[in-house]
Amino acid sequence: MTNRDDVKTLEWIGDADGSLRLVDQTRLPGELAFVECRDVESVWQAIRALVVRGAPAIGIAAAYGVVIGTRGALSMRDLAECVTKAADYLATSRPTAVNLFWALDRMRRRCAALCSASLDVSAARTALLAEAQAIHDEDRRTCRAIGEHGAALLSDGDNVLTHCNAGALATGGDGTALAVIFAAVRQGKRIHVWVDETRPLWQGARLTAWELAQRGIPATLITDSMAAHVMSLGKVQAVVVGADRIAANGDAANKIGTYGVAIAAAAHGVPLYVAAPTSTFDLSLADGSAIPIEQRRAEEISAPHGRRIAPEVVAVYNPAFDVTPARLIRGIICDVGLISPVTRDGIARAILAKPQPAATTAPPVFPVAE
Amino acid sequence: MTNRDDVKTLEWIGDADGSLRLVDQTRLPGELAFVECRDVESVWQAIRALVVRGAPAIGIAAAYGVVIGTRGALSMRDLAECVTKAADYLATSRPTAVNLFWALDRMRRRCAALCSASLDVSAARTALLAEAQAIHDEDRRTCRAIGEHGAALLSDGDNVLTHCNAGALATGGDGTALAVIFAAVRQGKRIHVWVDETRPLWQGARLTAWELAQRGIPATLITDSMAAHVMSLGKVQAVVVGADRIAANGDAANKIGTYGVAIAAAAHGVPLYVAAPTSTFDLSLADGSAIPIEQRRAEEISAPHGRRIAPEVVAVYNPAFDVTPARLIRGIICDVGLISPVTRDGIARAILAKPQPAATTAPPVFPVAE
Repeated sequence: MTNRDDVKTLEWIGDADGSLRLVDQTRLPGELAFVECRDVESVWQAIRALVVRGAPAIGIAAAYGVVIGTRGALSMRDLAECVTKAADYLATSRPTAVNLFWALDRMRRRCAALCSASLDVSAARTALLAEAQAIHDEDRRTCRAIGEHGAALLSDGDNVLTHCNAGALATGGDGTALAVIFAAVRQGKRIHVWVDETRPLWQGARLTAWELAQRGIPATLITDSMAAHVMSLGKVQAVVVGADRIAANGDAANKIGTYGVAIAAAAHGVPLYVAAPTSTFDLSLADGSAIPIEQRRAEEISAPHGRRIAPEVVAVYNPAFDVTPARLIRGIICDVGLISPVTRDGIARAILAKPQPAATTAPPVFPVAE
Repeated sequence: MTNRDDVKTLEWIGDADGSLRLVDQTRLPGELAFVECRDVESVWQAIRALVVRGAPAIGIAAAYGVVIGTRGALSMRDLAECVTKAADYLATSRPTAVNLFWALDRMRRRCAALCSASLDVSAARTALLAEAQAIHDEDRRTCRAIGEHGAALLSDGDNVLTHCNAGALATGGDGTALAVIFAAVRQGKRIHVWVDETRPLWQGARLTAWELAQRGIPATLITDSMAAHVMSLGKVQAVVVGADRIAANGDAANKIGTYGVAIAAAAHGVPLYVAAPTSTFDLSLADGSAIPIEQRRAEEISAPHGRRIAPEVVAVYNPAFDVTPARLIRGIICDVGLISPVTRDGIARAILAKPQPAATTAPPVFPVAE
């Protein structure tokens, strides 16, 4: 298996006419294969089918998808239409992770600014690619900052439990929850990770275990149902997970099962931290009850790998996410720092205080109206 | 698929020289196949490999296994040695469910009584078979009593969540936890069941969903990690589970994941009931910390159905059971009635008050010294 450092979860190949290359995460860890997206439909499919997954990575993929969607635009009006069409379409790929909408909105705003700057189409498309690459680059820095802020919360010898995959495969950088572990290990702390397998799609067993193995970090795989038992043995010092959308009060949507882990952690006095970039906050939602929860196919549960385990007639409920209330979260590890305790005011202060990123890394000759 | 009523989880075929026929539960629900055990080794293997599983069913299978172990005994001394050897061996098949040891001890006691009665070997073997059949018959009555005691706890329209399989496939009768649901349905109550899939071996998806489908009871399959989320939606009115061993204070070992469900239920004010026969109590253990927890093969988690989902190098922890503390159990539904609240005194009163079953259904010409 290739060393992790050689593997790019997302990679743009070429200029504005180029394509998006994705690690096919549905085939890990058995096979390291790539999917190359040359049209918007294939980006949409890659997001929907979890070829690329993880809230930040979905946002980055969608931003590149908008660039792909402008191929063939002949005029600036054409370009604006292409961006709107691609963004509207990509927004339907998955409903829960807000980073998707955040990235698409940022691409729309960039396009609007470019249109008002009366560029030629080719330069505008290059500028759009630069915006997508800026989102990608910022996510790398965000992951690093999250890792540094979070590592201070872990001690030498800690056993850390995580659910799903919030690692390099979920982001443009080192991850969110796993970045915290990676940074602690870089600091010389000995960390052992309990990896929840994360049914139904086994992102923990397939992806998190793979990332930890690639980096030589000791890890033990368990079923999701074992987390509470392991805590009862005193063998978990902290839980660190990612998030797909965080409401203004700190309620956090994350992979289904996170809520149960959070209840168990609280019952054992184990702190649970959510690691997420500021792009994961949705301050338009007062609390988690308004976060849309994606419902997925029954067969993900009843026929894993195509092999039916349950009778055909049984109904299946398959929500992809649940919401952990803020009161069960000890802190949110963010690129702007640690938000703890998790309160509406604390979140507002942290997020609104964040310096707005330069809207683009493209040359400043393009005026930006935002 | 054959109607449930035609399927016997365990069936003794023939006289004392006969054999034990088991539904091969590892192949359900895809295939209704049977395993016929003609030697003690195959009974041991059937228990170990979960061809037959569920605490009461394991006890019954082991009792029949002792009978099989006496085949070829030429003298009463020979018979006693065969019983000891078979019981000692079968006791090593699985460590957690106490019903196994309870049934084996009962067969040993019956053998001792027969030896002191100076029977001929053939009559003694017939009497041993009668004892095993008595254990089987009593379990049927026990299941019925549990169902009746428990049904009163469920209301028309309730959604009941269960974990693993504590149904007809786990017992000699209608089950323990599922018997409660079946009895409530017979009373005309409309019950919907949330079925935890129960990783790693999917007893919920494979067996509980199948039993409920056979009986036409509405059920919805979820992953274990969804139980807390479903509770948060207000869609669970009660949790009913079985048990593999209950300590004197009411701490109950059951399939891994039960503890997490119990914590979640408590957090949502949902009552959790444990349904189990008196043979599941181990009053020699002060509390659940002394219950031995079976550890099983890594591949059950890392390679479901032989398909590897996790990297080879990752460690796996696979305890088959966890212990739910008595404080999280609203009541224990027992053949002798409902024990609620769950206290050491309440348990002692209920269990010790139980009329001792006739030690055998064999003709009373065999004096019984116990």
